[in-house]
Amino acid sequence: MTAELIFVGTELLLGDILNTNAQYLSRRLSALGISVLHQCVIGDNPERLEEALKTALSRSDLVLTTGGLGPTKDDLTKETAAAVCKKRLVRHEESLDAMRAYFSDKGVAMPKSNEKQADLPEGALVFPNSNGTAPGCAMETDGKWVLLLPGPPREMKAMFELAAVPFLRRFSDGVIVSHSVRTFGIGESAMAERVSDLLDLKNPTVAPYAKNGEALLRVTAKAENEAAAEALIAPVLHEIKDRLCDVIYGVDVSSLEEAAVALLKEKALTVATAESATAGLIAKRLTDIPGASDVFHCGIVSYSNEIKMRLLGVARETLQTQTAVCADTAEQMAFGALRQSGADLAVSVTGLAGPGKDELGRDAGLAFLALTDGVSVWTRKVQTGHTEDDCRDYNRTVFASNALHLIYQYAAAFPEKPAGGEPLKTPVSLCPKERIE
Amino acid sequence: MTAELIFVGTELLLGDILNTNAQYLSRRLSALGISVLHQCVIGDNPERLEEALKTALSRSDLVLTTGGLGPTKDDLTKETAAAVCKKRLVRHEESLDAMRAYFSDKGVAMPKSNEKQADLPEGALVFPNSNGTAPGCAMETDGKWVLLLPGPPREMKAMFELAAVPFLRRFSDGVIVSHSVRTFGIGESAMAERVSDLLDLKNPTVAPYAKNGEALLRVTAKAENEAAAEALIAPVLHEIKDRLCDVIYGVDVSSLEEAAVALLKEKALTVATAESATAGLIAKRLTDIPGASDVFHCGIVSYSNEIKMRLLGVARETLQTQTAVCADTAEQMAFGALRQSGADLAVSVTGLAGPGKDELGRDAGLAFLALTDGVSVWTRKVQTGHTEDDCRDYNRTVFASNALHLIYQYAAAFPEKPAGGEPLKTPVSLCPKERIE
Repeated sequence: MTAELIFVGTELLLGDILNTNAQYLSRRLSALGISVLHQCVIGDNPERLEEALKTALSRSDLVLTTGGLGPTKDDLTKETAAAVCKKRLVRHEESLDAMRAYFSDKGVAMPKSNEKQADLPEGALVFPNSNGTAPGCAMETDGKWVLLLPGPPREMKAMFELAAVPFLRRFSDGVIVSHSVRTFGIGESAMAERVSDLLDLKNPTVAPYAKNGEALLRVTAKAENEAAAEALIAPVLHEIKDRLCDVIYGVDVSSLEEAAVALLKEKALTVATAESATAGLIAKRLTDIPGASDVFHCGIVSYSNEIKMRLLGVARETLQTQTAVCADTAEQMAFGALRQSGADLAVSVTGLAGPGKDELGRDAGLAFLALTDGVSVWTRKVQTGHTEDDCRDYNRTVFASNALHLIYQYAAAFPEKPAGGEPLKTPVSLCPKERIE
Repeated sequence: MTAELIFVGTELLLGDILNTNAQYLSRRLSALGISVLHQCVIGDNPERLEEALKTALSRSDLVLTTGGLGPTKDDLTKETAAAVCKKRLVRHEESLDAMRAYFSDKGVAMPKSNEKQADLPEGALVFPNSNGTAPGCAMETDGKWVLLLPGPPREMKAMFELAAVPFLRRFSDGVIVSHSVRTFGIGESAMAERVSDLLDLKNPTVAPYAKNGEALLRVTAKAENEAAAEALIAPVLHEIKDRLCDVIYGVDVSSLEEAAVALLKEKALTVATAESATAGLIAKRLTDIPGASDVFHCGIVSYSNEIKMRLLGVARETLQTQTAVCADTAEQMAFGALRQSGADLAVSVTGLAGPGKDELGRDAGLAFLALTDGVSVWTRKVQTGHTEDDCRDYNRTVFASNALHLIYQYAAAFPEKPAGGEPLKTPVSLCPKERIE
């Protein structure tokens, strides 16, 4: 069973809106075990839409469209699709009643122009619209199916879940199950090389991705049911974990911050932040996770030397002799945040986000990080290699990711909380490579 | 001149990633006066890609692809496109050198697998990749052009702007000029109503958009050259500014933070932040703007009551009797940040980002903000109305936007810096509606 998606709307071709429907439908169909092999975007143009529908029906079993079901003159998806499928449009009284009720709920009269939304292809299975006026539908043509869905994501999603999914289950030949293995501290190519033989597998497939300085592997299996898919994945996932154990921070976690917060909670640890270059981004990312208040109470953004000295107790001499961007400043910032916050550990970042070089001629992308628990301190030097004019956002993201990764590593190495007791206060060992020379 | 876009990547068909490249390229090509009539998405499958390329070349003058230029085995866009255009791939030494330099800058050896990225279609115009390894290119075939761009948005955008745009200008019939009018504190419908007659204009067009709690108007004209387009826009823009003067914070500025930082610089003011619900997001957004260090030195993230008392001097009694989410807490937080930082003004946020209600049964989406200059204090109550399970990100963004808007309003109302003198220290008047009851 293969499906093809046709997104109708000139606003998509002009780039006025982001096509979030594409990702939504692709992901949902994939989870239903229906393979999407083509997606296309067409303007509000009946000739090109007709051509796209005919092409899609020639090569796919199932064609889904979004958009063009509205009341205006350029909304022609239904008319065009009905003509391609050789169906007449007939008034669907039930939909008309639903539309009238929709408008009267809002206390306004239904404009005459909306009536045409109740004209649907003869014999079609009608999908009610719980969040708007335009109904959708499914119609059969030569043993294939065309599904028409509205364009606004709120309407499309509700209709898809409530009406289209139950209908589509009959076409689903099995399920697709996917797991993401997330790594930090290794490039995509280097990661892929360590599992290169696995990238040729057919079921499950193993595919590498890179984003914002992180690399991940997606392992995806297709099978009759979920258990069978998981059974196909298990040995491959085991092998990947084995080969990449030094860089994996989680499977099916959404981010470093999620992994870090979860581990801090598990170990009953609290963390504070002292941020210069990232200026709040670490704190922001930690608190993106609901419930972060259990593990994070205090962050200090010390964007000037004055504040580094005043609030964090960084020595004037360090700043004068080594500048604010050095390992010593990072260490003192971390100790300062620990003192101010009373947290179990504190992490700090000072660096050059860019654009441009610093007064010593050092390139953007350089940062020093420190993490301390009051007993030991670990520092890390980061050089992203990104120095171009628009590097700022990337560098700040990677600096913050490194800080979150340090927190993750500390919490992972921290002894388990003894049952019923206070957490141990034992210095942990991070990997020695964390020490800079 | 018509163009067609082909996005290559199984991850797009699976819905693993959102196709932001589609919007970016559509918008940019449109601005260059090049009409995009088709977009399509194809997996990492050479047969289907070949078919898509042939179809595109049969109906469009220009075909742009993104993705599939990576070093791995499933990256086959270049090989497939070269075969369709009947070109051999030849080693491009300059690109190989650039790649080696890219890796050596990062202090790592180039994996052998990357070498194939330097093989490019014979006779192609090479587009260097300033943000990654894979070069792109443009190749001619039967009077039409195929442009290959990388998939990662950072790499694609930089290459498109630096190399593809100068190349594409030759195909551009006229120019499209666009200006964005940004507002804050008004909904999209209310904004659109105030300019409803202008929305019917044909050239320039006026279109409303809404995003993250902000509404904006895009005014776009098409003409033979830039000056002619600007002349069409000028009177309409003037009319819009007149009608929306109370809510506009900028024309062609990219964000509230950009507008706020620019005004703070102009008025030689510094600001500090005290954040609870937003937890670093205001500081992060201020420092997204290069040069923010002139106006921002200190931020305190006080995510717990303990830290609100200890670092910001919020009274225990206030927290106990009114909770952390109230106007008094916000005021005391702002005064605390002002004291700790020595800045000219301080802004604070305390609120309920969600998900879920607070202990008093108050819905997520509620926040109190305060801004003080040490002489006066202004407070603002925000209720976003977003209480659903995934409201957290939206609420934090809107809370932070309100804080940035308060800063913007203060700085806008602040007396100009007298020439050659110290800035005046006169209390400013914000609009009285800023006071909550």
